[in-house]
Amino acid sequence: MGVDLDKIFKPQSIAMIGASNKPAKWGSFLLINLLAGGYPREKVYPVNPKEKEIHQLRAYPSLSSLPARPELAIITTPAKTVPGILEQCAQQGIKHIVVISSNFSEVGEEGARLEKELVDIGRRHGLAVVGPNTMGVVNARHRMYAVGAPVQLRPGGISFVSQSGNVGANMLGWAMNQGIGFAKFVGSGNEALLRAADFMEYFGKDEETRLILAYLEGVKDGRSFMETVSRISLNKPVIALKAGRTEEGGRAAMSHTGSLAGSDHIYDAAFRQSGVIRAETSQDMLDLAKSFERLPLPRGDRLGIITLGGGWGVLATDATSQAGLKLAELDHNILDTCDRLLPPFWSHGNPIDLVGTIYMETHIAILEAMAKSPNIDAIVALGSLGTGTIIGLNMLVSQSLIMDMSEDAMKSFFMELKERNLRLLNRAKELMKTYQKPIVFVEMQFIGEEGLRDLEAGETVIFTAPEKAAAILAKMLQYRRYLERKGAAAP
Amino acid sequence: MGVDLDKIFKPQSIAMIGASNKPAKWGSFLLINLLAGGYPREKVYPVNPKEKEIHQLRAYPSLSSLPARPELAIITTPAKTVPGILEQCAQQGIKHIVVISSNFSEVGEEGARLEKELVDIGRRHGLAVVGPNTMGVVNARHRMYAVGAPVQLRPGGISFVSQSGNVGANMLGWAMNQGIGFAKFVGSGNEALLRAADFMEYFGKDEETRLILAYLEGVKDGRSFMETVSRISLNKPVIALKAGRTEEGGRAAMSHTGSLAGSDHIYDAAFRQSGVIRAETSQDMLDLAKSFERLPLPRGDRLGIITLGGGWGVLATDATSQAGLKLAELDHNILDTCDRLLPPFWSHGNPIDLVGTIYMETHIAILEAMAKSPNIDAIVALGSLGTGTIIGLNMLVSQSLIMDMSEDAMKSFFMELKERNLRLLNRAKELMKTYQKPIVFVEMQFIGEEGLRDLEAGETVIFTAPEKAAAILAKMLQYRRYLERKGAAAP
Repeated sequence: MGVDLDKIFKPQSIAMIGASNKPAKWGSFLLINLLAGGYPREKVYPVNPKEKEIHQLRAYPSLSSLPARPELAIITTPAKTVPGILEQCAQQGIKHIVVISSNFSEVGEEGARLEKELVDIGRRHGLAVVGPNTMGVVNARHRMYAVGAPVQLRPGGISFVSQSGNVGANMLGWAMNQGIGFAKFVGSGNEALLRAADFMEYFGKDEETRLILAYLEGVKDGRSFMETVSRISLNKPVIALKAGRTEEGGRAAMSHTGSLAGSDHIYDAAFRQSGVIRAETSQDMLDLAKSFERLPLPRGDRLGIITLGGGWGVLATDATSQAGLKLAELDHNILDTCDRLLPPFWSHGNPIDLVGTIYMETHIAILEAMAKSPNIDAIVALGSLGTGTIIGLNMLVSQSLIMDMSEDAMKSFFMELKERNLRLLNRAKELMKTYQKPIVFVEMQFIGEEGLRDLEAGETVIFTAPEKAAAILAKMLQYRRYLERKGAAAP
Repeated sequence: MGVDLDKIFKPQSIAMIGASNKPAKWGSFLLINLLAGGYPREKVYPVNPKEKEIHQLRAYPSLSSLPARPELAIITTPAKTVPGILEQCAQQGIKHIVVISSNFSEVGEEGARLEKELVDIGRRHGLAVVGPNTMGVVNARHRMYAVGAPVQLRPGGISFVSQSGNVGANMLGWAMNQGIGFAKFVGSGNEALLRAADFMEYFGKDEETRLILAYLEGVKDGRSFMETVSRISLNKPVIALKAGRTEEGGRAAMSHTGSLAGSDHIYDAAFRQSGVIRAETSQDMLDLAKSFERLPLPRGDRLGIITLGGGWGVLATDATSQAGLKLAELDHNILDTCDRLLPPFWSHGNPIDLVGTIYMETHIAILEAMAKSPNIDAIVALGSLGTGTIIGLNMLVSQSLIMDMSEDAMKSFFMELKERNLRLLNRAKELMKTYQKPIVFVEMQFIGEEGLRDLEAGETVIFTAPEKAAAILAKMLQYRRYLERKGAAAP
């Protein structure tokens, strides 16, 4: 497109055309999300000829009556009004427009005709138009939530373009629950003018974006798309969830967005050639995103595993092997450390079975020895976090059998458990920085989603499924090797 | 073994040999878990010659000084004392024993010698011995938590034998967090005498057990094991997570429990032949367990999908196809219902895209039409639950912009959202009963783990990953077809 998209993602002021007080209307909840998210109230201009005030903001009857020219227009009015409004925007010098309104090409011929009109007007006036039929736009670092989902995200380095509004909205909701940090989001909707690749191009250059996610159902110009992402992926990881993998899924995609999904094998090969990391499922995409954002890339395929108990070690070994990684050989320093700290019957091999030891200093010392080892490229720690929980809960129950614990005593008890875990996580962060190798934790006690998010604090990676870590690390290695083949530096 | 295991799982009284007041000891926290779980205090006899009172219970110096003969003895004393204690148990007529103590065959030759002694004593006196080196035993329906993990489970129909204590304990913890109902659990430990198959045999006959889970690293007598599970699986689903799938995992299993994992292909074929459902991961096993427990088995492979938005429909279609299932054709009644309730541009095909409609009655009416349809064997509803959440949260935010909401108003608002969801779930329960076909929900808003557990109430199945439902339904169909081939009735 060659159009600057800054004003879509960082507008200094916004006109909301179709803003409304009626609860179930997009013109209402989009405005509410925008205000609730923290966008400056004085920079929002609701446009609606029938209202004097909308959600406590002064409403204006028309674009021409606004006190200043807005940098971005967001449209939620019925489809048939949109071409006329685009013309008005062009007249007023507003070049950046998000068309939330639906009932365009996705609903049949009449809609397709309207969409064609929209394309013509956009091209004639050089407008940058998102949509139509889009979930909206988010800039988490600038508190702009012009989006249909009531989310507020941890600001971070992940930017996301979604060819489905509901997939995009739900994934933002999960990311919020999981404390995953975002820079920007856009639903590309029907892609009448701006397409997924345009947003990815923008994210590729955007300084606030460190990695790019894409939910794709089909791309309209495959060659140019791949050329674009090949260029981007040399600087930033690009993670794609491609729907329509099967013939049936392809047909469903066709009926959903009218996009031709194309053979999955072709996509698979194209993704591999252009360095795109492919996510298996929606949750897999979020797990990859947080791992790529928070961890250094592994330099090789040799995994070191410590485990609180043998069974998880076996399952993690299976996962390592299935992911195409290897178990590292333990060097003398690790062997000496374990001999010194563990009972004599310790596993003497990788995975290192800590046979239930709850001494956090033992976990930390062995983690350090592994981080230092030139034999090890990445580390997975199963059960080291939360080692205090079982015994702690037992002590708590024990005490409550004998006496009622005060609320303060309870609080300080849980604080202590948390500090124990943070000691480990902070050391891991230092080790990752010093040795530039990823350390992934698998928590296998009962901390719960909120507790985990709190411990991660957007900086470390904690999974609950022991089988997951190896698969994620393998994809990170795949990306590093792609960069090496291309002679590019790891980000 | 031919030994009745009732007294292991439903003992009227328990001696805790090695009971202790010292917090970090198994003899302490096992006793605490037992008492905290609700086992009658007056039926627990701590045995420890050094203490007068343990956790407020009178302690006895020896087995022979107990006021009555306990039905079960649980031993946590050091390994070398265990053979002597087994002899004493036999003398006192105690035939059922759980040996928690470790440092037997898992730690080397000396331990293996001790374990051999234990086997000899057990055989000589006809003792039923669990362990050694076991995490313990649970009977959730009788509030017996003689186990190292601080869990308390929803009583249900799932019984679980685990060849790894830590895998078993963690899975119980997750099951607790996820509200999955259990009947019994046992860690089989080193399996000196009682083996996984013995427990499965017992669960097979147990009236409180409706389905059986097994975490396996290796079985010692493959032929007899398979013969046993073949028999059981004709009456109850048997779901197995088999570790040591890869060569490396097999070696790790060898070093963990000394069991020969065997070729994974052999296990795979044996499982298929004996009707065992194989879980892919630990979380997969829990998802299968709750689905088999709560849902009728599908009669065929034709899936009906309704989705709040198109994107998830595409992903669910991919998953359907990848799981070997088909998209059902919509019959006239469904088509008429959709024509009546949805906008004219609705998808006119399966998946049925509800294009974001938030009217719960529309969701329910279409669900009813699908349940009635002879073309459909199973239903997946994506996003029907929680349709009120987005708009509800928006209304909430809207109101809070205008006025502070009282705590009561907030409460009644959330109650209303919950009741909306329950209306749908209760109707689904009735439909499942009437038409005997499974209905699986995928919640894609932001209810959170606790909210979901609360909605499921141990009776319906709600996943958060849209890709999961089809894979689970395919395994349920696989089991039904196994039963049909064998001429057995579906449970």
